[in-house]
Amino acid sequence: MTLTVLFAVPPLWDEFAAPLRAALAERGLDVTLVTEAAPEAVDYIVYAPASPLQDFTPYTRCKAVLNLWAGVERIVGNPTLTQPLCRMVDPGLTEGMVEWVVGHTLRHHLGMDRHIVNPGHVWDPTCPPLARTRPVTVLGMGALGTACARALAALNFPVTGWSRTAKAVPGIDCLQGEDGLAVALSRAAILITLLPRTPDTENLLDAATLARLPQGAVILNPGRGALIDDEALLASLDAGHIGHATLDVFRIEPLPQGHPFWTHPRVTVTPHIAADTRPGSAARVIAENIARGEAGLPFLHLVDRRLGY
Amino acid sequence: MTLTVLFAVPPLWDEFAAPLRAALAERGLDVTLVTEAAPEAVDYIVYAPASPLQDFTPYTRCKAVLNLWAGVERIVGNPTLTQPLCRMVDPGLTEGMVEWVVGHTLRHHLGMDRHIVNPGHVWDPTCPPLARTRPVTVLGMGALGTACARALAALNFPVTGWSRTAKAVPGIDCLQGEDGLAVALSRAAILITLLPRTPDTENLLDAATLARLPQGAVILNPGRGALIDDEALLASLDAGHIGHATLDVFRIEPLPQGHPFWTHPRVTVTPHIAADTRPGSAARVIAENIARGEAGLPFLHLVDRRLGY
Repeated sequence: MTLTVLFAVPPLWDEFAAPLRAALAERGLDVTLVTEAAPEAVDYIVYAPASPLQDFTPYTRCKAVLNLWAGVERIVGNPTLTQPLCRMVDPGLTEGMVEWVVGHTLRHHLGMDRHIVNPGHVWDPTCPPLARTRPVTVLGMGALGTACARALAALNFPVTGWSRTAKAVPGIDCLQGEDGLAVALSRAAILITLLPRTPDTENLLDAATLARLPQGAVILNPGRGALIDDEALLASLDAGHIGHATLDVFRIEPLPQGHPFWTHPRVTVTPHIAADTRPGSAARVIAENIARGEAGLPFLHLVDRRLGY
Repeated sequence: MTLTVLFAVPPLWDEFAAPLRAALAERGLDVTLVTEAAPEAVDYIVYAPASPLQDFTPYTRCKAVLNLWAGVERIVGNPTLTQPLCRMVDPGLTEGMVEWVVGHTLRHHLGMDRHIVNPGHVWDPTCPPLARTRPVTVLGMGALGTACARALAALNFPVTGWSRTAKAVPGIDCLQGEDGLAVALSRAAILITLLPRTPDTENLLDAATLARLPQGAVILNPGRGALIDDEALLASLDAGHIGHATLDVFRIEPLPQGHPFWTHPRVTVTPHIAADTRPGSAARVIAENIARGEAGLPFLHLVDRRLGY
């Protein structure tokens, strides 16, 4: 029987249609991939926040909504969504995230900025300390946070990982809960925020938690803009407590031209490039989940509605 | 019997005396560590290019000259040096080199400079390609080059390693010889030069070899300044063939203020910080070699005078 898969994000069709068709064929799935269909005929929905589809009620036959991005905060609370919802865990997305996180960690660790911009031609041959003396904390030990923590540990950074629930990752000092958070923050010469956006994580970095970071700490946020209280961060930067913030995600994107992050001398803005779903590898994840649904196997990366991710 | 070890680099005494004494004691060696001694009473010499000692003839009992740095080009040709000469292979130095090389590779790979300096507040959310599509070539597969190649391969960069003699390193495509060099250069979106300075490697990167690099290639030189013909590099940058050069080593250091590298928009100067001998770990290497000498074992990191390294 031919399955009907609704690709519910028309703006992404050109980018994803061919990789999806190839991945579905590779799995031997007999699929009609369409951007419009009678709701009651749809077996699976491929979704992203840019989709005009907001009412899932008429999709009575739909076995799963398969998100193209890792973040699901804009769909998880939709009360019409009763079908299983799956996040994207794309190996290409993870690789890109690791590259951004390791790159910017080393940039700050090595003090690269003073060589990239050096109008006075200053020659100061003082070597940076070794990574083994620069503690890094990763907040959020999901697929992305764990991959980043491992890559940093492989470069000898002492890495602490913090997550809501207890985890065990070889080579990483894993902490959890409120007490664990205080310890994880207190150690962080460099702090990396990779938590999902949920009501619990919104403004996790506020005046109180920023104050727990060591003097001069550097913050890298490739996770979600809402994890940080912008005003509290700016105040802590101006007070000289936080040394630098390199931010890839913002509450409003593109970051508005008047936002103080653009002009702050100790803030670097990157334009939400830390991780992007790659059509080729993401298509294989979608195809895998459709194949699992058809075989009666549990879906990969199923969202827990109660936790919000 | 108490050994006499001459520390022949007075300017480094304050930095190295305590770590050396600790490392020698840790190995159970009974040593008098001095900065002056009757030459015929000296058992080992700890050396660096800054040493005033240039005539090794009177050191008739000396069993080895132990260099504190990796590079030996300023001592290997000394005709009075008939004692075994050992290079420094310091794990701290290797770690620092890997951090500099991986950091600057990722900086160029991610296109960080345009975010670090972005006066127009440009928001271009085009993601960089993944590392797995960015080929990197390492020239020189000694201890430092191999460590860098492995670290880059662990981040998914396709890595080619080139060396004078054939090597085999898992995960690295190892090439050698003249033909191998042409292939290694032709693949290098990013080229890392970590060869020793010898008559054979001087000006290895000249107009002819630079022309073999792909259009837009980036060069990282943390090895030796003399590996590159400065004029040829500037000409290739100006012609738009080489995309950027990040240089840590120069023929004259500090790099003279009038040198065009300081002002070239596509050259980054770092002040010979890629790798530095760390007193703690270097002292343990020196102690290990003295212990080996006393036990009649072959020295570690013995220099081959014929090859010059």
